[in-house]
Formats: sequence, C-alpha cells, structure tokens
Amino acid sequence: MTLNLNHSPEVNELVQRTDTFIRDVVIKAEEATKSVLNGAKGEAVRFELQQAAKDAGVFAPHVGVEYGGKGLDMCARAPVFEAAGYSLLGPLALNIAAPDEGNMHMLERIASEEQQEKYLKPLAAGEIRSCFAMTEPAPGAGSDPGALRTTAEKVAGGWRINGRKWFITGADGAAYAICMARTSGEPGGRGGATMFLVDADNPGMSITRHIETLDETLYGGHCEIDFSNCEVPDSAVLGEVDRGFEYAQVRLGPARMTHCMRWLGIAKRAQDIALSRVNERQVFGSRLADLGMAQKMIADNEIDIAAARALILHACWELDQEIAGTSSVSIAKTFVAEAVWRVVDNSLQLCGSLGVSGDILLSRFLREVRPFRIYDGPSETHRWAIAKRAAKAARQGGES
Amino acid sequence: MTLNLNHSPEVNELVQRTDTFIRDVVIKAEEATKSVLNGAKGEAVRFELQQAAKDAGVFAPHVGVEYGGKGLDMCARAPVFEAAGYSLLGPLALNIAAPDEGNMHMLERIASEEQQEKYLKPLAAGEIRSCFAMTEPAPGAGSDPGALRTTAEKVAGGWRINGRKWFITGADGAAYAICMARTSGEPGGRGGATMFLVDADNPGMSITRHIETLDETLYGGHCEIDFSNCEVPDSAVLGEVDRGFEYAQVRLGPARMTHCMRWLGIAKRAQDIALSRVNERQVFGSRLADLGMAQKMIADNEIDIAAARALILHACWELDQEIAGTSSVSIAKTFVAEAVWRVVDNSLQLCGSLGVSGDILLSRFLREVRPFRIYDGPSETHRWAIAKRAAKAARQGGES
Amino acid sequence: MTLNLNHSPEVNELVQRTDTFIRDVVIKAEEATKSVLNGAKGEAVRFELQQAAKDAGVFAPHVGVEYGGKGLDMCARAPVFEAAGYSLLGPLALNIAAPDEGNMHMLERIASEEQQEKYLKPLAAGEIRSCFAMTEPAPGAGSDPGALRTTAEKVAGGWRINGRKWFITGADGAAYAICMARTSGEPGGRGGATMFLVDADNPGMSITRHIETLDETLYGGHCEIDFSNCEVPDSAVLGEVDRGFEYAQVRLGPARMTHCMRWLGIAKRAQDIALSRVNERQVFGSRLADLGMAQKMIADNEIDIAAARALILHACWELDQEIAGTSSVSIAKTFVAEAVWRVVDNSLQLCGSLGVSGDILLSRFLREVRPFRIYDGPSETHRWAIAKRAAKAARQGGES
Amino acid sequence: MTLNLNHSPEVNELVQRTDTFIRDVVIKAEEATKSVLNGAKGEAVRFELQQAAKDAGVFAPHVGVEYGGKGLDMCARAPVFEAAGYSLLGPLALNIAAPDEGNMHMLERIASEEQQEKYLKPLAAGEIRSCFAMTEPAPGAGSDPGALRTTAEKVAGGWRINGRKWFITGADGAAYAICMARTSGEPGGRGGATMFLVDADNPGMSITRHIETLDETLYGGHCEIDFSNCEVPDSAVLGEVDRGFEYAQVRLGPARMTHCMRWLGIAKRAQDIALSRVNERQVFGSRLADLGMAQKMIADNEIDIAAARALILHACWELDQEIAGTSSVSIAKTFVAEAVWRVVDNSLQLCGSLGVSGDILLSRFLREVRPFRIYDGPSETHRWAIAKRAAKAARQGGES
Repeated sequence: MTLNLNHSPEVNELVQRTDTFIRDVVIKAEEATKSVLNGAKGEAVRFELQQAAKDAGVFAPHVGVEYGGKGLDMCARAPVFEAAGYSLLGPLALNIAAPDEGNMHMLERIASEEQQEKYLKPLAAGEIRSCFAMTEPAPGAGSDPGALRTTAEKVAGGWRINGRKWFITGADGAAYAICMARTSGEPGGRGGATMFLVDADNPGMSITRHIETLDETLYGGHCEIDFSNCEVPDSAVLGEVDRGFEYAQVRLGPARMTHCMRWLGIAKRAQDIALSRVNERQVFGSRLADLGMAQKMIADNEIDIAAARALILHACWELDQEIAGTSSVSIAKTFVAEAVWRVVDNSLQLCGSLGVSGDILLSRFLREVRPFRIYDGPSETHRWAIAKRAAKAARQGGES
Repeated sequence: MTLNLNHSPEVNELVQRTDTFIRDVVIKAEEATKSVLNGAKGEAVRFELQQAAKDAGVFAPHVGVEYGGKGLDMCARAPVFEAAGYSLLGPLALNIAAPDEGNMHMLERIASEEQQEKYLKPLAAGEIRSCFAMTEPAPGAGSDPGALRTTAEKVAGGWRINGRKWFITGADGAAYAICMARTSGEPGGRGGATMFLVDADNPGMSITRHIETLDETLYGGHCEIDFSNCEVPDSAVLGEVDRGFEYAQVRLGPARMTHCMRWLGIAKRAQDIALSRVNERQVFGSRLADLGMAQKMIADNEIDIAAARALILHACWELDQEIAGTSSVSIAKTFVAEAVWRVVDNSLQLCGSLGVSGDILLSRFLREVRPFRIYDGPSETHRWAIAKRAAKAARQGGES
Repeated sequence: MTLNLNHSPEVNELVQRTDTFIRDVVIKAEEATKSVLNGAKGEAVRFELQQAAKDAGVFAPHVGVEYGGKGLDMCARAPVFEAAGYSLLGPLALNIAAPDEGNMHMLERIASEEQQEKYLKPLAAGEIRSCFAMTEPAPGAGSDPGALRTTAEKVAGGWRINGRKWFITGADGAAYAICMARTSGEPGGRGGATMFLVDADNPGMSITRHIETLDETLYGGHCEIDFSNCEVPDSAVLGEVDRGFEYAQVRLGPARMTHCMRWLGIAKRAQDIALSRVNERQVFGSRLADLGMAQKMIADNEIDIAAARALILHACWELDQEIAGTSSVSIAKTFVAEAVWRVVDNSLQLCGSLGVSGDILLSRFLREVRPFRIYDGPSETHRWAIAKRAAKAARQGGES
Repeated sequence: MTLNLNHSPEVNELVQRTDTFIRDVVIKAEEATKSVLNGAKGEAVRFELQQAAKDAGVFAPHVGVEYGGKGLDMCARAPVFEAAGYSLLGPLALNIAAPDEGNMHMLERIASEEQQEKYLKPLAAGEIRSCFAMTEPAPGAGSDPGALRTTAEKVAGGWRINGRKWFITGADGAAYAICMARTSGEPGGRGGATMFLVDADNPGMSITRHIETLDETLYGGHCEIDFSNCEVPDSAVLGEVDRGFEYAQVRLGPARMTHCMRWLGIAKRAQDIALSRVNERQVFGSRLADLGMAQKMIADNEIDIAAARALILHACWELDQEIAGTSSVSIAKTFVAEAVWRVVDNSLQLCGSLGVSGDILLSRFLREVRPFRIYDGPSETHRWAIAKRAAKAARQGGES
C-alpha cells in the first residue's frame, strides 16, 4: 500500500453531489426558513429537507447500507460532512447533525439487535430524533466525566435513575434519551457508569427548561432534564453495565471530529461570504480585496482552514485505524474549534457594519461557533490532556 | 505644576458614589428588567433609573452645571464612566449613553443659544433622546467620512436633504436627529459637509427599518433612515455651513473615548464574574482559580484592563489639553476595543458552559462588545491612520 | 486506489534508520564539534559525518539511484528530512542541507547530461558543495523576483554577467554557483531570466564579504558576491535561455518544503529538550510539567508540530501530483515558519535562564529559525499571494 | 492637587538633553565601538562616554544630589531612562545600567553611612562597578526566591558564606558583590535571608565561568560565582540580618521598572529603524510604508510602545507613592517585556533580510531583549502572582 491523500472517486463524487445539493437546495431554504435558522421549531422543514436529501442521494451517508446509508468511515466523512456543514441547515438535511449522528455511530457499534431495530433504524431514517444525556451542572460530570453524579440503582427487573442533566441538545421533541448514570463508585473516583435508553414518555424523565444560550439551536434546544425515580427495564441497558465511560469514548472521539467537520464547513462559508464582500467593496479608492490588512485576514483564514482540514483528516485516519493512545483527536478538536472561531471573527471584521448586522449570516455564525471552544471538552482540558501525554511519553523515553 | 496621577478628591468621591449606585440600584434593576436588557423598549425603566441617579447625585456628570451636571473634563469622566459602565444599564441611568452623551458634548460646544435651549437642555435632563445620523450604507460614509453621499441643497429659507443613513443608534423614539449632509464637493473628494438638526416629526425623515444586529441595543435600535426631500429651516444648521467634517471630529474623539470608558466597565464586570466563578468551582480536585491555565487568562485580563485604563487616561489628557495631531485617541480606541473583547472572551471561557448560557451575562456581553471593533472606526482604519502618521513623522525627522 | 496516510514500510524503515543515526552518531558529534555549530569552518567534519551516513545507509536519499540515492518523492522526504533535521548537523550529514539539496533537485530535472555528470554527480556524492545566486540587495530581486537586476549579455560563444548578489548561502568554498541573470526585459517588468553554472574559479565572480547574520550558518556563510564582466560559455546555460523564472519555481516550491521539514525537526528537538526540563524541574513545590501555564505551552507546541507536519505532507502531495495553481506550498511555508518559531520560543521560555544560556541549544535554535520567516519569501509575501489567489478564485466563482 | 500627566519642565528639559546626548554622542560611539557592542570588554569606552555624559549634564540623574545626581523619583526616571535606552550604550554612558543602577537605588536606602561612603559614592561616580548575587542554579533561588540555598553562618566577628550563584550580571570586573544568603530557615520555607557586601578581592569568592547567553552583555558578563567558606566581617551586613527578602523587594520593584524603561528605549529605536526602512523601500511598485501588512506592524508597534509607556508610568507612580499590595509592577513588567519583544520582532520583519543581517542593529536587539521575558521574574511567575492577587481580592469582596 502506498501513501495516497486522494479520497476515492466514490467519495469525491459524493462530496460533489453534497456540495451541489447544499448550494442548490439547502441554501435556498435558508432564506425561506429564516425563522428556523433563528431558533423556532421546524419539524416540517426537517422532513422536507431530508426528503430532498434522499432524492439527491446524499442522505445519512455515515450509517451502514442496512440503515440506508453508505457506511462511510471517518476519513470519508470528513469532506462530505464539511460540504454539508456549509449551511447551518445542511447537517439537518443529511441527518448528520449532533446529537443524532453521534448516537447513530454509537448504537451501530454497541446496541443489541433489538435495540438497533427499535432505536437506530427510525433514527437513521429521520423518522425520529434523539438526545444524549451525559453533562451535568457543576459539580457534576463536565470537563471531568468522572464527576458523574446521576445514579442508577438496581431494582427488580430494571433500574431506577435519579439525577439532573443540562445542556442536553435536542432533548425537546426527542423520542428517547441515552442517559449516562453511575452504577458503581463515587463521584471523583471514576468507578462504573452505564448507559440507558430512556423513552421520552417515561414519566420519571422531564424537561425542566430550555437553557438560553449564545448559540441558537435549530430546534430541540439545550435542555435541563430531571430524572426522578425514573424506572427503566433491564433491556434499556445499552451494551453492558458499568462500561459507560468506555462507551462514551466510542462516541466522543468520532463525535468531536464530526463536529469539527461541520464547523469547518461554516468557516469555509464565512470566508466565502467575506471574499465576496472584499471583491465588491471599494474603500479609500481601492478594492478592499487589494488592501494589505484585508489580505492578511483572508490569508490567515486560508491557512486556518487548510490546517484544520489536514488535522481532521489525520485524526480520522487514526480513528479508522484504531490507533489508540495518541493526542490526535484532542489536537484536532482544540485547533479546529479555535481556528473556526478566528475565521468567522476575521470574516465578520472584513464585512464591517454589515458583518454585525442580520443582513448576512456572519454574526449568527459567530454565535454558533463560540461554544465549540467549550462543548466537547474545553480547549483547556484538551491542552491539559495533550501536555500530560507528551510529558509522560518523554519520561518514558518514547515519542511524544 | 507637578505630575500627579491621582484624580481629585471630588472626582474620587463621585466615582465611589457612582460605584455604589451601580451596585446597589442598577444591578438590582438588571434582574427586574431583563426584558429591557434583552432589547425590548423601556422608556419607563429609563425614567425610573434616571430619577434614582438624580437622587443619588450622579446624574449627567459630564454636562455643565447650567445643565444640571458637573462639567467633568475628559480625564475626570474616565473613572466615572467606567464605574457607570459596570452595568449595561448604568450609562442609561446616568444619561451618559451613546449617542446622547456625544450629542450633548457637541451641542454644548457648537450649538447656538437658541439651539441649546431647545435641543440640549431637555436632552441633558433626560426628558428626550436624540440620534446622530452620519453613517451610510456602502459606498457612502463609513470608515471613510469623505465618501458622504447624503446631500443638502439650498432652498429659500432653508435646506432640502436627500439620502439614506443606516446604523443610526437610538433613532426610534429620538426627538431629533443630527444629520450630516454634503453641502459642497463630491463623494471621495471631501469638500464640505454640514450638520442639521432635524425634528423627528419632519415628514421628510422616516425610519425604514430596525437593523437586526449582534448586539442588542437597549432600545431605539440601530435604524435605517430615509431622508426624502426633507426640508429644514436655516435655523436647523448646527454651527456653520460646510464645517461638518470638522465638527464631526469635535464629537468623534471624545465619543470614542467615552465608548472606551463604558466598555472598560463591562470588561471589569466580566472579569469579576469570572473571578467569582473560579473561586467557587472545583475541577480535578483543585479550585479553578488555582489552575495555571485559568490563572493565565485571569492575569491577561488584569493586564488588558490596566493597559486599557492607562491608554484612555492618556488620550483624555491630550483631548483636555487640546493637543492635536497625535495618535493617542486612535491608539486607545484600537487597543481598548480589542482588549475588552479579549477580556470578555476569556471570562466566558473561564465559566465554561455556564458562560455561554443566559444564566449569567457573559454571552450577552460578548455580543455587545464585538461591534466596537468596527463601530467608531474599525481597528484597521485606525491602524492605517496610526501607521501613516508614524511614517510621516519619521520622514519629517520628527518623533513618531 | 484508496486513501492511505501511512508511509510505505520502506520509508518508515528509512525514517527509523535516520532517527537512530541522528541520535547515536550525529547528536554525539554536536558536542565534539561545538566550534562547527558555532560557525567555524569544518569541511573535515562534513566528510566524516557524511561517511558515517553512507555507512548507515541514509545518505542522500532524495537523489536518484543513479546518483547513490533512493529517489524519494516529496512525500517520502517529509518524515526522513524531519528526522535528519532533529540535529543542526543532520542535514549536512545526509547531504540534504540547503542550498545543495535544492540545487540537486533542480539539476536532476533541468541539467543536460554533461552538466549532470560534471555538476550533479560530485555534488550528490558530497565531494563538492554549491550555491544558488539569485537574491540581490534592494531594490533588486528579493520578495519580488521580477525586480532582478543582474544581467547577462550575449557575447561570442557565451555570456557576460554583471551584477551583485547577497545572502548567497554556502558560497564560500562552493565549487560553483548557479547564477540567475536577466537576459531580456527590464527590472519590474518580468521578462526573461536565465540560469548559469559559474565555476568558482571564474575570475569574474568574487565573494566580497560574509554577511554577519542572526543565524550562524554551518560554514560557507551568507555571502555577498560580485559578478564583474563574468564570462561563461554557452554550455554554462542551465536549461534554456529566458526560462529562468520558470526553473526557479521548479526549485523553490520543493526547496521551501524541504526547509520546512528540516526546521520541523528542530522544533521537535526543542520540544523534547523542554519536555526533559519540565519533567525534572521543581518549582513552588510542583513538577514544572504539572503546572498549567507550562502545560499550555507544551500543548501549543504539540498542536503546532502536528499541524506543521500535516500541512507539509499535503503540500508535498500536491507537488508530487504536479497539481498546479494552489496555495498549498505558500500556506505550509508560512504556517511552518511561524509555528517553528513559536515552538522554539515556548521551549526556551519553559527552560528559563537555562534556555537563554549556551548550556543548552535553545537560544542557538531561536537564532537559526528566526530568519526562515523571511528567507524563501517573507510571510507577508506569501500571505499576499494566498489572499490574491483566494480572492481571484472567488471572483471566478471557483473554489478558493 | 489636580491630575496632571505632564512631567515638570525640569524633567522635560532633562529628557531633551538626554535625547540630544544620545543622538549626537552615544549613537556615534556605537559605530566606533562596535567591538564593545559585540561583547568585548571596554572599560575605556565606559570612562569616555561617562565623562561625556557628565559634560552634557545628564550623568547619574537617579541618585541624590550628594552623589552627583538629580534625585529623580521613579516617575521622572521613566522618560529619562527611556531616552537613554535608545542606544544599548546609553545606560552605560549615564551610569544607569543594570545592575549598578539597582544597587545604587538600594544602597541609598538601606546602607549605613560608612557603607555608602565606601560602596555607593564611587559607584555613583562611575569609578567602580558592582554586581548583585542573588540568582542560583536550579533548584535554588530563581523564580521562587524562597528556594535560596546559599548560606551564611555566624562566626566570630562575621559570617561565612557558602553557595553557588549564576547569571550574575557584570560580575567580572565588579569591585564588590551584594550577595544574598540564607541566615535562617530552610529552602522552600522562606525564613530569613541577609545581604552581604563582599569585596571582589575576598579569596572566598571566585568567578568560575562566563555563561554564554543569547544576549551579549556589554562587559562584565553573566557569571557563575562560587562562594567557598567566604568570610566577611559583621560590617559587611547590609541593613539588618534576616531582612534580605524584604530588601530584595526594595530593589526589585524599581529595578524591574528601570529595566522596562531602558528596553522601551530600544523598542522605540527599533521602530525608528523600521520606519526609516519602510519609508525608503519600494516593493511591488509601492513604498513599503504604504502597504497594509507593513502598516499593521507599524501600528501595532505604536500601540505597544504607548501602552508600555503608560503602564510604566502608572507603576512608577505607585512606587513613588509607596502604594503597596498592588499588581502594577508585575503588570507593567510582564506587558513591557512582551511588548518590547513584539516591537523588535516586527521591526526586524519589516526590514527583511537586512533585518537579520549585522548591517543594522535589529538582530542584535532581538537577542538582547528576549531574556527580559525571563530575567527579573519570568512572565509566567508574574502572571501567577497577578492572578492570585486578583482572585484573593475577589474572595475578600474587594477590588481586583
């Protein structure tokens, strides 16, 4: 086998098709569905766009063929998800938006056949939505998963869950939640966690509020959820008892990278909006695109986009090859979250007053991408992990 | 006279009083008036807070005694406005918010006695609000004032104004606009501009829309205004015909600095919110305040705040001393706009998910301060002016 | 063909062998040859190290088999040259140091068979050294190659060269120079340039001085060279007349990337030195490696190194695939030059006073890498080219 | 007393005189004494320049009138030392170079009359030089003074000092050292330190080597010093026994600020060199000074210089007013050390290849200023102190 940085013709063709779909169908829908972009609920829009994506042959490319997809590995997802991410509505249209996409990824690997039939199949088809209930308000599970405080205690024939979760994206309207609860050990001491599939109509689970956030989710919100003596049967256990922390890793690494891919699409869009502006705008007798300070920002954006794309691909390669014990996912996540932020910020600056107005999308993008430096592990936590690994490798005489 | 970096006891006392007023009265009102903070109209809130400020003896300290103020010079305004800026509602309460504050500053210097009686007096008293109509959509007056396209042509007994303005802050509900229009020369060629006082009920002036923006103005909006054969009498001319560009400078330098002072107050508030958080929050077994990466952000904030404060004071000193031909205002404006942005961004990061939520004010602050890197001259325009001046001084063998 | 980010087993094996050679042989020689590291001439050291590299089977891997090498393409050179760059003496030992390496690259592609025999063969074998005489003092050829002022005028049976070159690396002791001279057109107007092979004993070519620089070249210096009625035969023309600018590109793109590879090796070394230090050093009761501000610097280094490596590989891929018209080389060059600088600077900071001392190599590295942000096109020139290309692509509706 | 940011006419006049002296006399000497600039010893040059400074009435302005100076307070030193710092030789000429200047400052405040007569008087007159022996190699006193390991044990009639110091600037040729040694407590536990005046001819004190460093000291070197049973009489105790840590603060705060002042002079010089270059140099058909990316660097330099100057003045004001418990010195030191570095780096970049050559002074400046981010407390230590103070103030409900 020789080194080859080209994607396969099939993947390239899918990227092209996705790109065309986004530009011809989804971006047009952005205008028509501005209220959706601005946070209103829009299940109808979702069904319509997803049908269009099915018609265009670009729907749910990440799941297996048996679920209507193309079984793309992580490397192949990179350019496809980036192309879809070019519109905030794109991932929704392709059914590759968070948290559903990450849930499908995990269910495909861990769920039993019965669970896949009931929970994965309709999710992959876009018939329902889901959510992932892990994060807790301080001092619970956040940057430090081991601080998990929600508990599940064994009862006859099942489990009883108690605890409070927050920032649960897409919870409102989700058909079920995947809830992570402590089944052994103490907060701070790691121990065992277990994942449970909790149906939305379970009376023990309730959404207590939508958290207002800087980003405007498409719909489903960032919710606070209360689990009060929430009883689930044994069949609700996803995978095995006490292996939840391990499964979370199965979900988190890939989910971090697909987040990066989608946000990279937004960065590319922001840069294209800015380029369009600097090519038109005249200031002080010059085209803005010909002024050095603008050129610096444009070039910095190009560099950031190229480096982000390269780091994502390399991390995906390691995920696909199941190379463990490296920092590539943390490196890519940290760099991409900050690079995307810089690109959107530069692009907005290049557009001046127009940039902060709602007349173009940049101020919306700025709001959407800021939290990514915090969600999925803040930059500081990833840097801490990267440094610890490097220092440890050096102590062991190994490569960092 | 000896060097003395202490403010006078009177000023220090006023700062203390303002600080107490903000913490005891205004911040309490923030909670009760959350809808105002979120952009709803709130003339009632304004009247109430301004009455409280009058009672506390901190109202309108910048205008002359004859207008109920304390006639503070720019240097004295610096700590007082910073203290008021600690709450987004503070400048409103003290009647030192943009654009009214800048308009008062200019009217006090340029308007005729009759104009002062009619336009300045009720404005200083908080009875009415005003707006300043200079900025135009591209390719009109923006970074480059000389691109001014709105025209005023002489008619019998007055002038006829035609043109379009946008990003006119506070226009909705303002009793009058100060409109800048070209009275000689061509766009791009400088020539002469004139300022006109246009009453809100003039049928030739109409607000065509509120521009949706990243920041949420308290009320009055960032508006687009249409001037269509808008006729005003000769008495509407502010100062002299064709001296508008010059007068704009009278307003702009100080207005840039008061903007900086107010935003510095927000930076200080953001840092205090973050400090409170890092002092409470435990992660990985340590107080967040004791972790090095958090300490770096905290210290960077302290440095940025100190440098911003020092640069504002030095620029104000030059304004008070009427030292012309220096870059101190551009230097302070550029540094402060970027420093405030960094401080708020760091503070938000220190608060993690909570920081992007509406539960605390940081994501609101982030939205409010971002445009300041563009409003009042984008950083790039100021840097261009600073560099040109430095290079020219070097060519002339002088000091940069 | 499928995407594959693994190098071939042969390349990986060569990287391993190179790595071992550098650590076991070359780094030991650093100590013994400190005077060489400090700039003294050391032809003897070169011969000795190159013999060792031949014995280790790692010598001149970039040239074709017929010249004793392995004919590595650009992608394969990336990890090998990085491994060699881990010591400042490494590239010398492998005969892949600038400017010889770039000259070999170009001669292998452009030179006639006779020229290859005479000029390439002994160069590839390490028997002689060479230099590349293109850069001129302002206002000549520098960032802007089209400003070329050195001229070659046709005379019977050959050419007469006149002009002045500077920053000609390795000129002192080189067996010949490849000199670029204008053969048509005017400075500023592009026109045609031609490359000439000029033997060191040509009486028309003389080294007028060694330019003292921040970096300390191993030997051969950064020289100023005078061409005064320097006559060369027609057979001295490299390739064809008037195609010099084009040939320069053949050399420059790859040469920029091999520079990046070698400096990335130094960045890796700097990080390893810092890691070793932070693992040992105790401050304020903690291991330095466990303090957050140190961890931030360590992690930033890891991120920079990973991104640099990825960007180099992607640019090399495009060079190997002869994909033209992209910015990948400029992007990689700009990012790597700045990233390497940041890594060395951070590493030095992590070592404190020791870092600025001559007791460890970091201050030497800092001096060596700083000029790379200027040599081979300053960052500003590359950013300008990147931005121009992106803006033009946007105008043409294409991809940036 | 009113706020007044103008220096007194006397100070302004002295600044003018210093400025003229530096430009007319000292900068001329730079050329003639290039070998001194390059690190060779040059006591003769010192005497000559100091005589010229005496003739110009600008010598030793910081010491009291009784020692031939003008008794400038810290605020007044700021512009004078900055003017002197415009040449690397300037502080030497005015006898305000480190470490002598800091030693004079401390001796004037702490030494007994006899000690002042013997140690301060000839030092202030420029007849002798001195050094300050505090820093120790790891794990001794460095960032953490409490780690002090050199000990002084009481013997009859005096003290016996044992320990090793390094990075002792100016030690070679100094008439005496002020040595800090532990007289009670244990390393890490603070306890008591004492300062001793140790004459150079004391047989127990020996210079073991000159440490090669990135910066090139004028002469006197950065030395390693060995104290081996070094006996000194009781009269060698500076101030009181066990109060050394406290005295070190007396020296350190002001010494940090005078360092900042001098390096700010170098930053100003670097910017002036760059401005001269960009005003002359043509690239791509424009004056370099008119290109946006160059203008950005120029403007950033102006901003950094202005902010550095303002922060120094504010910290000096607090020192003069003996306001304790603030972070102003740490804030100024951290910002200035990094700002000066950025200014020199930008200036060098603006000069391209010429910038890295020895033909102009910028690469020399780059080497000189880098260590200041480490000497006098690395940026990280200062940030740690700043953050700790801010967090503590917040916990106490106070102002940060």
